Order: sequence, then C-alpha cells, then structure tokens
Amino acid sequence: MGKGFQGNYFEDFSLGQRFACAVPRQLSPALGEAYVALTGERTPAWCDASGLVNPWVTFHAAFGQTVRTISLNAVANLGYAGVRWHGPVWAGSMLRTELEVVGLKENSSRTSGVVWVQNTAWVAEPGGAERVALTWWRWVMVHKRGEAPTRWLEAPVVPTMPASVQVEELLPVREALRSPVETGAAWGWNDYAVGERIDTWDAMAVNPSDHMSFTRLFQNSAKVHFDAHGRDGKPLVYGGFVLSQAYALAFNGMENRLGIAAINAGTHANPTWAGDTLYASAYILEKAELSNAQDLGALRVRLIATRNLSPGLVAEFTPDVEDPKKPGRTKLHNSVVLDLDYWEVVPR
Amino acid sequence: MGKGFQGNYFEDFSLGQRFACAVPRQLSPALGEAYVALTGERTPAWCDASGLVNPWVTFHAAFGQTVRTISLNAVANLGYAGVRWHGPVWAGSMLRTELEVVGLKENSSRTSGVVWVQNTAWVAEPGGAERVALTWWRWVMVHKRGEAPTRWLEAPVVPTMPASVQVEELLPVREALRSPVETGAAWGWNDYAVGERIDTWDAMAVNPSDHMSFTRLFQNSAKVHFDAHGRDGKPLVYGGFVLSQAYALAFNGMENRLGIAAINAGTHANPTWAGDTLYASAYILEKAELSNAQDLGALRVRLIATRNLSPGLVAEFTPDVEDPKKPGRTKLHNSVVLDLDYWEVVPR
Amino acid sequence: MGKGFQGNYFEDFSLGQRFACAVPRQLSPALGEAYVALTGERTPAWCDASGLVNPWVTFHAAFGQTVRTISLNAVANLGYAGVRWHGPVWAGSMLRTELEVVGLKENSSRTSGVVWVQNTAWVAEPGGAERVALTWWRWVMVHKRGEAPTRWLEAPVVPTMPASVQVEELLPVREALRSPVETGAAWGWNDYAVGERIDTWDAMAVNPSDHMSFTRLFQNSAKVHFDAHGRDGKPLVYGGFVLSQAYALAFNGMENRLGIAAINAGTHANPTWAGDTLYASAYILEKAELSNAQDLGALRVRLIATRNLSPGLVAEFTPDVEDPKKPGRTKLHNSVVLDLDYWEVVPR
Repeated sequence: MGKGFQGNYFEDFSLGQRFACAVPRQLSPALGEAYVALTGERTPAWCDASGLVNPWVTFHAAFGQTVRTISLNAVANLGYAGVRWHGPVWAGSMLRTELEVVGLKENSSRTSGVVWVQNTAWVAEPGGAERVALTWWRWVMVHKRGEAPTRWLEAPVVPTMPASVQVEELLPVREALRSPVETGAAWGWNDYAVGERIDTWDAMAVNPSDHMSFTRLFQNSAKVHFDAHGRDGKPLVYGGFVLSQAYALAFNGMENRLGIAAINAGTHANPTWAGDTLYASAYILEKAELSNAQDLGALRVRLIATRNLSPGLVAEFTPDVEDPKKPGRTKLHNSVVLDLDYWEVVPR
Repeated sequence: MGKGFQGNYFEDFSLGQRFACAVPRQLSPALGEAYVALTGERTPAWCDASGLVNPWVTFHAAFGQTVRTISLNAVANLGYAGVRWHGPVWAGSMLRTELEVVGLKENSSRTSGVVWVQNTAWVAEPGGAERVALTWWRWVMVHKRGEAPTRWLEAPVVPTMPASVQVEELLPVREALRSPVETGAAWGWNDYAVGERIDTWDAMAVNPSDHMSFTRLFQNSAKVHFDAHGRDGKPLVYGGFVLSQAYALAFNGMENRLGIAAINAGTHANPTWAGDTLYASAYILEKAELSNAQDLGALRVRLIATRNLSPGLVAEFTPDVEDPKKPGRTKLHNSVVLDLDYWEVVPR
Repeated sequence: MGKGFQGNYFEDFSLGQRFACAVPRQLSPALGEAYVALTGERTPAWCDASGLVNPWVTFHAAFGQTVRTISLNAVANLGYAGVRWHGPVWAGSMLRTELEVVGLKENSSRTSGVVWVQNTAWVAEPGGAERVALTWWRWVMVHKRGEAPTRWLEAPVVPTMPASVQVEELLPVREALRSPVETGAAWGWNDYAVGERIDTWDAMAVNPSDHMSFTRLFQNSAKVHFDAHGRDGKPLVYGGFVLSQAYALAFNGMENRLGIAAINAGTHANPTWAGDTLYASAYILEKAELSNAQDLGALRVRLIATRNLSPGLVAEFTPDVEDPKKPGRTKLHNSVVLDLDYWEVVPR
C-alpha cells in the first residue's frame, strides 16, 4: 500500500467514529465571483458589496471537504437529509468540516455497505470565534475492501433522520433582503400559491470545463468527475453542479429569495453529462409563516431539473409519470436529473 | 402567465419610459482577474495594483444588467452608438444601470419592432456618492407579443443619435499611463499614421466554456447564449465576448493604450460559434489632439475581428470587398465578425 | 514591418543583453482562487487565510512575463535548470521579471539557434521594497529571421548551469506548515524512503477551456496555445499547465508539503492535447536534511505525468523503458508527458 490515499472503505468506518475533514478553506470573495462565472447566479445579495457568502458556496466547500473522508470509494450517493444553513456567513471566513458515522449497514452482496454520516461545517471570521454554519445528514454506498463480512451485515444500524426540516428550525438571512428594484421582480410570499408551477425558461449548457472547474473550485477530488480516459470519455458531472445550476435558473420567478435555508430531501434521478442542457421548473409545495420574522415567509419548493427538455415548452409536462411496470404508481420522468425538496425564504 | 419572467415584448415599451435595471453588481478585483483568465488581456493598468477597473468590465457588467429589461426577446441587436466612458472606475465600486426608451418603430411585418434606448451606468465607491461611469445608445429589434398593430407602426419615433463621439467628449484615464518598460513597446501617438494597418498576429480559439463563462460572469442571461439543446448544439456567442477578445488581441501594436474611451459604432457582421478562432487587425482612421491633455492623444481605430482567417497571413486581405450584387459598392469580407469604430487614448 | 509585435528572433539576441519583461502583475488573491479552479490544488496553506501565494502562481506569472521577450518564435522549449524559489510571497505583491542572455549557439541548419537566459523575478508587497522571488535558467531554440550566419555559428557560447540545486540553497517556506488534521495525512520526512514510488490515483481531464484559461490567466501569449484554426484544431497545451496539474495530483501522498522549493531539471517528453487525461506518480530520488531547519527535511522527487495511462493501475509500469533502437539504453515510456526532478520540503 503506497502513500497515495485511495479513500476509506466500508470496513474503515465504525459507529460513533468522528473525522475532522482535511483542508480548511477560506471563503474568499474570489470564490463567490468564480461561482457567478460558472452558474450565472444573480441573487443580488451574493454579487453586491454585502460581503455575504452565497449559501451554495458554503455548501459546496463543506461538501468538498468531506469527499476525501467519505466518498472516494462511493458506489452511489444515496441521499441527504436535514440540510440546514445556520445564518449568514461572511466573505473571508475560514471553513472546516467534521463528520460522525451514525449508521452502518452491509449489503447482502457483501461487496459494499451503506454509511450514514452527520456533518457539521464551522466558520470563523478573521480573528473571530467559530460557529456552526451548516449541518446535514448524508448516506453513501461505499465499496468494501475485502470479502469478510462485518458485524453490520447481521446487525445493521440505521439512524432516524428527519423527513423534513421544521419551519421553526429555519434561520433566515435577513441581511440578504433587497428591494424589488434591485431584484427585478415584486413577487412576495403572499403572491405564491401552494401547487403553483414556475417555469424558469432559461437554459444552461453543461460544458466539460464548466463542471470540472466547479468541482475543482470546491476541491472535490472524486476521480469519477475527472477521469475522462478511465470512463470512456464520459466523466460524471458532480451532482452539486446540477444543484447549483438549477437553483441559479430558479432565480426567474423567485427573484426576492433570501437564499436557500434548508434541504429536506434530494434525488439525483439520472446522471448528467457534458453536452447536456439543463432546464428547471419549481413547484410550491407548502407555505409557512416564520414566527421569528413577521415580514418574511417560507416556501417549500420542489425544484425539478431536466436535461434536454425545457418544461416550459411542453404544456403537459409533469415530473411524475405513470410507471408502466407498477400500475397505479408514478416514477420520475426520464428527463429529470434532479428532484430537490427545499425551504426558501422570501419577503411577505 | 407564470412568474418566470419571459422578458419584455415590443408592446411593453413606451416613449420616455424609464427602467431601473435589476441586480446591482460590485466590480470586485476578482471580476477583473476572471476577465484576464477569459481574454488574456495584458494592458498593465488592469492587472497591476492600481485598483483601476478595466473599462470593458464596466461595459459588460452594465450591459448585462440591461439584458433582462431590453433584450430577452431580441430578434437582433442592431447597433450601439455614442458609447462613452466617463473616467476611472475603482475596484470595489457598486454598479447599477438605468435605461430610457427614446425611440420606437414597429416593423411592417407586425411581428416585431425596433426599440431605441439610452443607457446610463452609475458607480459608487464604498461609502461614496454615485457618479456616471458609462452612457450609451443601443437599438434592438424585439418580438411583438401579439398581432394588434401599435401606434409605432404608423407613427414611428426614431431618435437622432451621434454619428460619432466628439474628441472633446473623451475623458482619458490618466491613471492608466504606464512606462514603455511596463507595456513592452514605445509607440506613442506621434508614431501612428492615419491609414495605418496593424496586424496583431495573435489568435484566440473560442471554446464553449470560455464564451459561456464570460457571459455568465457578467450575468447576461439571454438564453440564446446557453441553450445548446434548443439551438441544435450551437448556442450563439455573446457579441460582447468578441469585442473583448478583439480588443485583447489589439494590445499588440497599441501597448501604451490608456483604455477605450468611446465607441462610435459597431457591427457584428456575422455570428461567432464555439470552435471558431478569432484574429484581429486594427486600422487608424483618425488622429486627434486632446485639449484637456497635452501629453496624450486620441486615435480613432477601426478594429476588425475575423474568424478562421488570420489577416496578417493574407497580404491582400481587406475587410471591405466588392459586393457582387451591388456593383461599385463594398460589403464586409465574409470572415469578418466584428467591425468596431472606437476612440483610444495613448501618450504622445 | 507593422507595429504588431512578432517576437524576437535569434539575431535579436546578444550575449549579456538584459531585458525587462513587460506587464508587471499583481499576485492577487483572485489569481490564487482561479488557480484552484483550474487545477483542484488542495495544499492547505494556499487556500486558507494565510495570504501565502502558491509558488506555482509566482512561477507561471513570471514565466508568462518572459514569453513576449524570449519565446514567441520558439521552435522548442529545450529545458530549464536551477529554478529556485526564494521564500514566501504574499498576496497583493507586484511581480516583475528580468532576463539576461547568457548563451548563444546558432544551429548548423542556419535556420535557428539556441538562446540561454537567466531569469529573475522580483516581488514587492504594497508599499514595500522589492526582493527576489524566483530565479531560473532556461534555454530555448528560436527561429532565425534571415539566412546570414551569425558569429554564434562558429563561436557558440554555452553557459555552465547547475546540474541540480544544492540542498543548502533551499529556502523552505515555514509559514506553509500545517497540522496533519488540516492536510489529511501524517506522512513526514522520516516516512519516505529513497526509491519509493507514490501513485497518486487521481486523474485530470484536459479540456480546451481549462488549458487556455490557465495560459491566459498567466498572460502567456504564445500563439501556439490558442490558434486552433492555424493548428488544424490542435493548439498545443502549455507545458506549465501540465506541471501544475501533475503537482496538484501529487498532493496525494505528499499532503504535508510546504511547497516546491527548487526544480533541478524538467523534460516535456511529449505534447499534451485537449482530450487527454493526465495521471501522476512520484518517485523519491533523495532525502536531505536542512541545516537551517531541524524540524523540516527535503525530498528530491521525480514527478512523472502520463497521459491516458494510470500508472497505479499498471503494476509493472515504469517511466523508463528499454530503447529498442539503442540496446542497453532506456527511453521514457511513450505515455510520459512530463519528467520533473524537483525539491520538496516536508516536516520531519
């Protein structure tokens, strides 16, 4: 075994194990500017002189830090839950991330297992104290190193995770509030209706350099995203790139957003490849008042990203279609690459 | 009609109407660095510690702000005139843009019309007062929403715009003056001759990610530049990208330039696509003294960008060729993608 | 001869001639962030709040400055030697570069000649005094302008250059020292053995926009890297891009590195093209104590970058293979694009 780190295998994890993730990162102003160049993000607070860090920048930088620990040997990223941002983060802050193993289950194939981790990202402004910036659960299927069964085959531990983040847990970033003149639209919380569909109309082509630059920017070193030769010319686009593109497209129709406050659940339904064009539509699932902010309101949004199909141009498009194999059940339309359930905060 | 903004149509405009364009932008140092990465720009004042913002960065950021208001439904960008930079802009400044409708003319097809707008971009340094940074006219052919004729079919209003910017109006950025040791060449105003042609010899390939990153960086969200799927794999390159590439190439032979001071007129003669390689040559149209700056002089330059043809390698190349359809008249050589008429300032 | 600079030819150089290279550059924080986006570099000191400039950023910015002077008419970049970094460089510093011609030899073909130059890059912090940041020798084969022989055909002058940088000359950047928690691995100088091979396992696809953005970022204007049309769609990847990618990949297994301290020699054995995927492996050639730093040690490393072959997956891979044309002699494996001999500093 040489020194070049090949990542942890299922056998390397144990319940309650804690990891400090390598390579602390400064959330610099330039990081935010590079994010704009790669996504076209327009939400005013993240491109004006506020000094606010885009919550997605914090997310990707923190997520990137965990890759070396948890997912270099991933078979599949199965999901995340209870993703919560804990208030404003300011440019120049240092970010570091820790994770704890909270669940383990070996698969019956004995070649892989599922690892559940709880993640915490801390930030500190220059000279300041650390505080929590982001917390989330994630579960990943990871290769086993060998054939010998582990105790998690017979006695798996599966953690209880929140099905959704409660409204009371949301911490809106009031500092991101801007006027309609600055955002370009007047829609407020009162204007949205449960069941409403918002087509965003825009489009974003995925170029090889775009998705790799994004993934490198956040120091996510999972080889699957970069090894064109080893993957017959088709390196897999990092799912987080799709998240950010879809969210950037969803500026249209949610111009007054203060920024994503929580993710309830997310499914990367299909892979995305360079050469695809992404589109997005948003569905309002739920509206909630915020007890700690009378002038703001929360929207629970279902954000659907499709590839090579613009939902706004297909009148009858629905993300959920009848499953021919399971009568009476639905499945996601095969153009869907992302199905994200999240909480957004907007002014009333 | 959903909330996802689909842009203004011809019927949405009225004479004298004023728009404050959405999404104010900080002109950060990182924006300038990203500009260098995407263009290779070498003019010293915009990559040293001066804090000066490249005038093209101001231009594209302001132009990008107007897109949501004026050109999401553009059939064609017909031209611009009287583009004037109003002195130095400093990194860290906030930029916002307004425009006023000054002309309207419905086309006889009744499916589109021409909108003339006068644009003003303001900058403010942190804590400072706003001042004008850039003003320009632009006219765009915009789709109509419906078939009913407007009053601008029978009674069009076409504004008078300046055929060129007067020398007296130029506001040279003295702060950008550097020594020949720093610029790499000694050419001054006295060395240039009217009629002179300058081949720049360099070349710049246009890659998909280059032009889209550039366009996203400046938050220009016109779908035509990003919708690879919807445009059969050929999203249109933003004309501003070609402007910046040609100007960056024109450093060769104009190394002592203080920066573009005004644009008299510009024609995007042909579309540019990813896969093209751009070349540039410059022609000195006119020389003028500057009454407010005895040690500086103005050059009126015709900057020609060609694709897939290096003018320096074709001895007999001229941008204007005989038009076979119109004896005695010329048209632009079909390799020409940009024909720009602008004022540059250089030391004497 | 027009004003567009076409570069110096062999006849333009004379022994002892000194050039101040054009376009001083600020080593901004954004430059470092762009470097991360283009390479995925993870060494903590260059992405945290230290303000340290990545030594490769200094290298490429300085090298880029010399291109206009020395290598626009290069037939081939033959090599470099004695590359030494002279201690920490801080973000915000201004960089400028000079070079001196120290050797000249016209080739017997009379169409080209070799120019040896000694290069020095200086940095100055804002308001501070200049100090040397980087020094190196380089030799380049340059086209002749004409056919007339020069005195360097009959009387060539070939300088003596160091075969390697001496350990005593290394100036470790102690400020880059981080804990294993931050770097992700505990390997120190004592853990490395002469002869050891480190497979880095990662991969990096080379996309057109990646290598051109990198080359533009550092204002290297050699046309060969950008002229897709003129080179039948195959612009040559800047060798420095390969250096940086290979070094970024070599983070795996050398996580505690303080940063490259010197280059003894380097060979770009084969060209790299967009579409290639790069891999890297490192060999420990030599270990040395540092008299000026008892808690640090130096490793002499041979860094091999391959294209489209992952050395870690080929058990019997060796960079040196038997040369079928020269029995008993070896040559580099034809997948090798870079063979770099350098000094790294790590904690004991």
